Amino acid sequence: MIGIVQRLAVLGSTGSIGQQTLQIVRALPHQFRIAGLAAGKNIDLLERQINEFKPRFVYYQDSGAHPADANYELLSLEDIAGHPEVDTVVIATSGKEGLSPTLAAAKAGKKIALANKESLVMAGEIVTGEAALNDAQIMPVDSEHSAIWQCLSGEKQSAARIILTASGGPFRHRSPAQLDMVTVEQTLSHPSWQMGKKVTVDSATLMNKGLEVIEAHWLFNMPFDDIEVLIHPQSIIHSMVEFIDGSIKAQLSCPDMRLPIQYALSYPERLPNPELPRIDWSDLKSLTFEPPDFDTFPCLKLAIEAGKKGGTYPAVLCAADEIAVELFLSRRIKFNDIASLVRSALEQQRDIAHPALEDILEADAWAREKVLQLVGEKP
Amino acid sequence: MIGIVQRLAVLGSTGSIGQQTLQIVRALPHQFRIAGLAAGKNIDLLERQINEFKPRFVYYQDSGAHPADANYELLSLEDIAGHPEVDTVVIATSGKEGLSPTLAAAKAGKKIALANKESLVMAGEIVTGEAALNDAQIMPVDSEHSAIWQCLSGEKQSAARIILTASGGPFRHRSPAQLDMVTVEQTLSHPSWQMGKKVTVDSATLMNKGLEVIEAHWLFNMPFDDIEVLIHPQSIIHSMVEFIDGSIKAQLSCPDMRLPIQYALSYPERLPNPELPRIDWSDLKSLTFEPPDFDTFPCLKLAIEAGKKGGTYPAVLCAADEIAVELFLSRRIKFNDIASLVRSALEQQRDIAHPALEDILEADAWAREKVLQLVGEKP
Repeated sequence: MIGIVQRLAVLGSTGSIGQQTLQIVRALPHQFRIAGLAAGKNIDLLERQINEFKPRFVYYQDSGAHPADANYELLSLEDIAGHPEVDTVVIATSGKEGLSPTLAAAKAGKKIALANKESLVMAGEIVTGEAALNDAQIMPVDSEHSAIWQCLSGEKQSAARIILTASGGPFRHRSPAQLDMVTVEQTLSHPSWQMGKKVTVDSATLMNKGLEVIEAHWLFNMPFDDIEVLIHPQSIIHSMVEFIDGSIKAQLSCPDMRLPIQYALSYPERLPNPELPRIDWSDLKSLTFEPPDFDTFPCLKLAIEAGKKGGTYPAVLCAADEIAVELFLSRRIKFNDIASLVRSALEQQRDIAHPALEDILEADAWAREKVLQLVGEKP
Repeated sequence: MIGIVQRLAVLGSTGSIGQQTLQIVRALPHQFRIAGLAAGKNIDLLERQINEFKPRFVYYQDSGAHPADANYELLSLEDIAGHPEVDTVVIATSGKEGLSPTLAAAKAGKKIALANKESLVMAGEIVTGEAALNDAQIMPVDSEHSAIWQCLSGEKQSAARIILTASGGPFRHRSPAQLDMVTVEQTLSHPSWQMGKKVTVDSATLMNKGLEVIEAHWLFNMPFDDIEVLIHPQSIIHSMVEFIDGSIKAQLSCPDMRLPIQYALSYPERLPNPELPRIDWSDLKSLTFEPPDFDTFPCLKLAIEAGKKGGTYPAVLCAADEIAVELFLSRRIKFNDIASLVRSALEQQRDIAHPALEDILEADAWAREKVLQLVGEKP
């Protein structure tokens, strides 16, 4: 790859992963060029990014603001994702908005650096199917899936077992009664990772780890029973893979999302980047492990069960969680209500096996409506 | 590799590594067949092994005992190692006896499963040179080097840094004064590994880790300054590799030599073997790390310095250590005398840069004599 400049489209460029992707591009200007940028509502930051990186293609939600003298073409997310002048699409949009451009990139046979969880959770069968059909390569950007991917490198056989590590979030060792009292501020102060609000709340409920189990299932074609979740509060081992001979490989690094982003972009090479932190073994005395507490954090179990059931269950899980987290962040429900609302939505949904994309989007819309109904915000 | 039976010659079949190699062959009879066996003086065990595995070629030291009706051919170690009917040579002989058959296997372009440390420490330049010249592949059997080798699998670039882990042995956290009092029995009770006597003493002095640093230098073409030793008492992480982007891969398993032996034999595949233990993460609460204590364990520093100096220094290190350990095991010197004797031999030797094999063997003989002189056992 070295020597050929990769043309990147960064969808969700003003979010946490998007901004860190641009830091990588800034640090490695001979390897990467920004061909496309897309953002939601943070138009000020997007404009600064446009001025700095001079992309050919831009998308933003409020397209009424488009200046007449712009040096770029306004395109839809899907058109940027599938554009012939784009080599790698970084899907860093959050929520279900990531699904449609991911599918467009898969259909166009792109390299897809995938940070959006919902694409695979909602529509793993469809997305991985389209990618396989069109020789698109999905490169995980999540630290956990990047770790698994790195550990599988060079192995002739697939993994026997995946050990997905989890920091445990800010509320490890709390009781359900204590969790009923936690505030939004406490929930948003994650012990080891700096992330967006939605994923930070999902980390506190362990829903995030549940979504990652479903992603791992699709990315690595791994049965759910062979994916184990292990709490590892230091967030140094980002996940592990056990092979058929009992040997385990682990990937370790400081908790910094720029490493998995850069690895996805530079794969199959690695690139030197002095900005990326190194583990200092004279500082690191101990790595600890404990099993997850499924009773106190029911979202983890709900997610794994929804993943096992398949069909539209994972889409309902995602949508219900997204609305429930919004309700929690706007202080309309308590922390433990997130899991209760997701559970109710899952219990009440009408499942469809091997759903088409429309079925998934319909289940998504139904679940959003249902959660709002459950809290009395809709009739 | 699966489907084709590998024909193995196990040199040193009655030692610890040799016996564990035969356990692997017993567990995986469709993958491996024993073509050759060689042992030193444990003729009783060798005869039982011959009856069980029916090798075509045999070597033993006391060849006067050769029965007339034997179903095998008596050959030298070198002839077995280079025989056309042998695919993989397992060098499990201890001490300098391993060097000559390793060179024979390298010259014959064999796959070499190398458990013998001295071959690479004494003559790393010659052995790796012959292997490269004749397309022989050296596959490390040591748990640490196997870990590094597994972590490098599939990577396009070489490592930026090797982190070689060490249990620390039975005398971790002891003072030099306390070490002056330790007995042979205390020295031989290693906390995590079951091994032969020589390597168990070398683990207690950390000489073993120093020899492994030199081996890693030759096996992975790694500058000494990029090889770090890290004490990790649980012996679960067998070593780590840091890449140019700061990402680290580690290999983990229960401390059981059968795994690295099997990996070397099955490479590049892995084979299922239910006899190999699995890590139970509900048992494993914590992995700890600390820097090595170079002052209390001077052998580690002596070895790394000898490795850096090169020439005949590593051969003198090996030979002096072998004799010093024998003297300690026969209770003629104290634990701390091992390092002092090795240091004196290194200081008094006359170095030769890029030594030929004869120079190395001469340095070896000189060092053995010198250590015996130093303790007054030779004039």
